[in-house]
Amino acid sequence: METKSILIDNVTIISSEIKKGSVVIENDKIMEITEKTGQKDADYIIDGEKNMLMPGLVNTHTHLSMTLLRGLADDLPLDTWLNDHIWPVEAHLKGEYCYAGALLACIEMIKSGTTTFNDMYFFMDDVAKAVDKSGIRGMLSHGMIDLSDEEKRKAEFKETLRIIEKCHDTAEGRIKVAFGPHAPYTCSEELLKGVRKKADKMGLKIHIHVGETEFEVEQVTEAHGSRPFEYLDEIGFLADDVIAAHAVWLSDKEIEIIKERGVNLSHNPASNMKLASGISPVSELIDNNVNVSIGTDGAASNNNLDMIEEMKLTALLQKVNTMDSTVLPAQKVFEMATINGAKALGLQGEIGTIEVGKKADLVLLDMKTPHLAPFRHPISHLVYAAKGSDADTVICNGEILMQNKELEVVNEAEVMKLAQDAAEELTSKS
Amino acid sequence: METKSILIDNVTIISSEIKKGSVVIENDKIMEITEKTGQKDADYIIDGEKNMLMPGLVNTHTHLSMTLLRGLADDLPLDTWLNDHIWPVEAHLKGEYCYAGALLACIEMIKSGTTTFNDMYFFMDDVAKAVDKSGIRGMLSHGMIDLSDEEKRKAEFKETLRIIEKCHDTAEGRIKVAFGPHAPYTCSEELLKGVRKKADKMGLKIHIHVGETEFEVEQVTEAHGSRPFEYLDEIGFLADDVIAAHAVWLSDKEIEIIKERGVNLSHNPASNMKLASGISPVSELIDNNVNVSIGTDGAASNNNLDMIEEMKLTALLQKVNTMDSTVLPAQKVFEMATINGAKALGLQGEIGTIEVGKKADLVLLDMKTPHLAPFRHPISHLVYAAKGSDADTVICNGEILMQNKELEVVNEAEVMKLAQDAAEELTSKS
Repeated sequence: METKSILIDNVTIISSEIKKGSVVIENDKIMEITEKTGQKDADYIIDGEKNMLMPGLVNTHTHLSMTLLRGLADDLPLDTWLNDHIWPVEAHLKGEYCYAGALLACIEMIKSGTTTFNDMYFFMDDVAKAVDKSGIRGMLSHGMIDLSDEEKRKAEFKETLRIIEKCHDTAEGRIKVAFGPHAPYTCSEELLKGVRKKADKMGLKIHIHVGETEFEVEQVTEAHGSRPFEYLDEIGFLADDVIAAHAVWLSDKEIEIIKERGVNLSHNPASNMKLASGISPVSELIDNNVNVSIGTDGAASNNNLDMIEEMKLTALLQKVNTMDSTVLPAQKVFEMATINGAKALGLQGEIGTIEVGKKADLVLLDMKTPHLAPFRHPISHLVYAAKGSDADTVICNGEILMQNKELEVVNEAEVMKLAQDAAEELTSKS
Repeated sequence: METKSILIDNVTIISSEIKKGSVVIENDKIMEITEKTGQKDADYIIDGEKNMLMPGLVNTHTHLSMTLLRGLADDLPLDTWLNDHIWPVEAHLKGEYCYAGALLACIEMIKSGTTTFNDMYFFMDDVAKAVDKSGIRGMLSHGMIDLSDEEKRKAEFKETLRIIEKCHDTAEGRIKVAFGPHAPYTCSEELLKGVRKKADKMGLKIHIHVGETEFEVEQVTEAHGSRPFEYLDEIGFLADDVIAAHAVWLSDKEIEIIKERGVNLSHNPASNMKLASGISPVSELIDNNVNVSIGTDGAASNNNLDMIEEMKLTALLQKVNTMDSTVLPAQKVFEMATINGAKALGLQGEIGTIEVGKKADLVLLDMKTPHLAPFRHPISHLVYAAKGSDADTVICNGEILMQNKELEVVNEAEVMKLAQDAAEELTSKS
């Protein structure tokens, strides 16, 4: 393969310290970070004078194809929302719809500075096609639900293994596959134990929802005599390869278990607020050295996939919930959305910070815009004042996916048309 | 004056019902709303095919010039933030700095779809210059603080009357002036009673902070034996011309008083969360038919002036705080940010909805963008998925202030340079 180089010149670099300089990319990797500017020896030069350069954001819990259900139903009780609106539509899902919704999600994420995500849904080989095409990086899992039915369980393992076989480590390594047991209240003990065994054998991650609602805690406690994280620990399910989304309702004992087992959590504030699920004790978890990252959840319960908005929500919600304005300062929240997310996915050696040798997953944000003036502390501006739309240029795996707010790899209007048609066809059936 | 007409053609109009059509503006007013499209008889035609047309948003509590302090100090306890960071810098304020900060705030608001605001700060005639120049609509008040010092009190009334005399009803009527007693704990009873008397006589509004922190409630209770709204009612201060910002800490009795007196409230969720002030019982207030609108507060404690972000925060925070996902549905929140704000400022006959005869304060939002696809329920998308940057074209008082995201009236780069220089000079002094 021929070497291809990109120079990002004269940019404010958000690294272990913040400094003005240049970054050189060769193929898919960061080769040099220097305070020199004005160099010329690269195949392609991006002038970063008005930009801040940050690592691509990492969204650790989402359901890409649910963009098709964005705004379908809001302001409803969780059970009405699910039973009367989401599930009846989802019953008519097919691969081509999931492809369209996932491609829409990919361009939405790229346009708001996210380069890596962790997804759980259905028709995941179609989702993989969208991820491959869009140039973004992602971990995919087929959502496994057996409701204690053995036939269903077998089918879920079969589908999961099919997706692993077909998609894991494809798209120049941008796509990984994980196990996706949906939740402790929708999966049998057999399914969960089977996942643990196979994940150990294959060295794959596990993505699951745990402790999202108080009702779930009641259900699990009634069925198993223990709270969700306790139960999962009792059956040997928990380890540091687990990414547990939501984790809203936690006892002190569960926090101990999470810490002990090294479980990675994905905090989803917009969804937890909008569905009135509750508030995760994130600042307490961070103080306990738990690896907490940030996810948007699906667009049906957020209703966007904007990680910059999610960072602000994360900080603000913890401050008001603890009545302490000093908790979760901007720098911590920024780490949650970048390196903590990378760690959760086992990719901390490859992404999550701007370092020589890491993958070139980089975002140039416009810092010369009224809502970020005067220019002062870049991390504060990023977490408290910025919008996803401030992303100017996005690079993933060394490829320029967007430049000066124009997508380079896919046609935005075509994707929106595809998604609009898919959404209309899908909802007309239910 | 010669008649000048603008036709906004083929647009999705957010009025009492949502329909596709056209809006005709003549001079400063909306002259026609019709389902016809493709008309040609106007001086200027805007194609609204890809847009939704909403009334300009109304920000009912802010401190424009504090944009200069954006990101200066975050994640600190309120007293440290104020005593060690904000006040020392504010001690060096002067008119030219306030002009620069206010002009920056005006363009930030225009760019995110706000056309009217309610401001309280200092050097308000300089702020008025910025408002006049930018083309936006606003109510200005000099922040009065006497700390029971008679000399200070006299000076505050003198300054307030100077600003009223100089600025009220200027800039083609876009600028109004109100009284701005800062808060019940920083103003003496004499000052508050004096304001009430003069406001009655002059027919002007009163803008005040009330019940922002628990500490304030303790202070007022200790000094006067009653909670803030009780105390204000006892001295005859409260009426339906009062706009009270924050209103976080409220007893049932205070809610009764607010309702009884017709006091207008401005809810400021980002600031209340970021400073860990607490959560206002907004949904309960709305259920009690209190007129609650939305404000961003100043950029030093938010850290932006984006009313679209503030709408989402308003809805989400109430849902999780009441643990009821049905409270404050999107439509209600949209009303808070438009017509309720207009009512608070006594401008409900002129702005806040799209109606024939009202002022042409209108915003065209880009609905053909990935994070708002598929196109479905405009109000849901606006409140839960949109960003301030979705504002394409902004019209205030019949003047086009921004078109296709480009400011028409002021030079964005020049304003940012002016604000950057002012901010650097200001902070170098403290």
